Amino acid sequence: MYAIGERINGMFKSVGAAIREQNPEPIHDLARRQLAAGANCLDVNVGPASADPVVAMEWLVNTIRQVTDAPLAIDTTKPDVMRKGLEVAGPGSVINSTKGQQEQLDIFVPMAVEFGAKLVALTIDENGIPRDANGRCEIALRVVAAGMEHGLEPNQLMIDAVILPVNVTQPTPGHVLEAIRNVKLLSDPPPMTVLGLSNVSQGTQQRALINRTYLVMALAAGMDAAIVDVLDSDLVDAMITAELLMNRAVYCDDFLKAYRSK
Amino acid sequence: MYAIGERINGMFKSVGAAIREQNPEPIHDLARRQLAAGANCLDVNVGPASADPVVAMEWLVNTIRQVTDAPLAIDTTKPDVMRKGLEVAGPGSVINSTKGQQEQLDIFVPMAVEFGAKLVALTIDENGIPRDANGRCEIALRVVAAGMEHGLEPNQLMIDAVILPVNVTQPTPGHVLEAIRNVKLLSDPPPMTVLGLSNVSQGTQQRALINRTYLVMALAAGMDAAIVDVLDSDLVDAMITAELLMNRAVYCDDFLKAYRSK
Repeated sequence: MYAIGERINGMFKSVGAAIREQNPEPIHDLARRQLAAGANCLDVNVGPASADPVVAMEWLVNTIRQVTDAPLAIDTTKPDVMRKGLEVAGPGSVINSTKGQQEQLDIFVPMAVEFGAKLVALTIDENGIPRDANGRCEIALRVVAAGMEHGLEPNQLMIDAVILPVNVTQPTPGHVLEAIRNVKLLSDPPPMTVLGLSNVSQGTQQRALINRTYLVMALAAGMDAAIVDVLDSDLVDAMITAELLMNRAVYCDDFLKAYRSK
Repeated sequence: MYAIGERINGMFKSVGAAIREQNPEPIHDLARRQLAAGANCLDVNVGPASADPVVAMEWLVNTIRQVTDAPLAIDTTKPDVMRKGLEVAGPGSVINSTKGQQEQLDIFVPMAVEFGAKLVALTIDENGIPRDANGRCEIALRVVAAGMEHGLEPNQLMIDAVILPVNVTQPTPGHVLEAIRNVKLLSDPPPMTVLGLSNVSQGTQQRALINRTYLVMALAAGMDAAIVDVLDSDLVDAMITAELLMNRAVYCDDFLKAYRSK
């Protein structure tokens, strides 16, 4: 699984403070620790508090680049903030994210092509979040079509079927698993699938348990990537074990250590 | 999920000793603790060491019946031991198990009808364990047909698609998930699906982690029942959480406690 570490986000108090004070140490620390814990990519979100989010994103990406060349997922809905993040981060980045309505796709799909970036597309459009798996797949198909139109290969797309908190809507986790399976049938090669995992447990009393249980289910449904807290070692153990059971990693007795030493 | 507690098995040293010495206390204790931990049914296996397994099964079932009326899964390949166990255990029992070759089905399917028992049928036949999901489903179809012939409803059948240790054959966990999904399409109403879960982790260094990860995957694939160690509380937590995420149990903040207090 392509693991996108979620922790460099201005919504976390310590990160928000580091951004405001332009203090690089907490950012360096989070970048290093997430990569050591198994992240393949680092999400970068300046959060809601920045007076000038373009400047904040530029500083944040530059600060991360002082310690790693790993791929970064630039996490914003604002096209100017996204563009600045991609410029500084360099090739192999991830645009996180666009929604599925045409006017957003017309901005972010060409931007993905311009920067050689992968594009996370949420299955949300002008009508909101679909109620079932089919509605999610319809939007995903529109995204794949927009990609083809602009010359973005399907495997550069990461379809996010939008998980909602299980305590708000209990049918949704099942719908999203069905959508993950069906999105894989939309094109050949198929688009990648991704989830912003932690949303499934928002507002519950058992966040870690719900997160890792749903991660395993989504991996069994064929999910390729997820935005997760890689510093949660129980979550990463569950991820590694699920990959092993799906025959995506070779068994050895020390398979947990073997994964982490890669 | 219909949880069948696996611990009353003569292969465990303390249980084997209790059977040999006709000491009821360890058996009473395991029956009570497994039911308190969430077992819906208790597996009963006299193990390999008994001089007279019919006598051993009679004693073991009678001993369990001193403390509970819960359904029992009589676990033996020997027809005479099975018959004795079913006679003493009473209605609502589970035959665990038959294989899929015709001569075995001709013995155990009528026995299930005679005793009003559910029948666990392994997808193994004279050619051994199939290499893929389709081979498993072919045997399952033969079992469903044998049930129809003898008047055993499909929902009294529990198809066990036979998981093997992940360190022996890594493609098998994926094949078994596919078989679980496809067995559900064989008839209407469909047969139930079941797994002897612990086999997936035999000989590995991370038995508990592998067991609970695969249990979650199998539940997401639609598995109805499993023979498990319900005394492993992390496993039961994973099971309860998977059921919640599959919308088979209603969310409340204390969903772990709520399940166990049922």
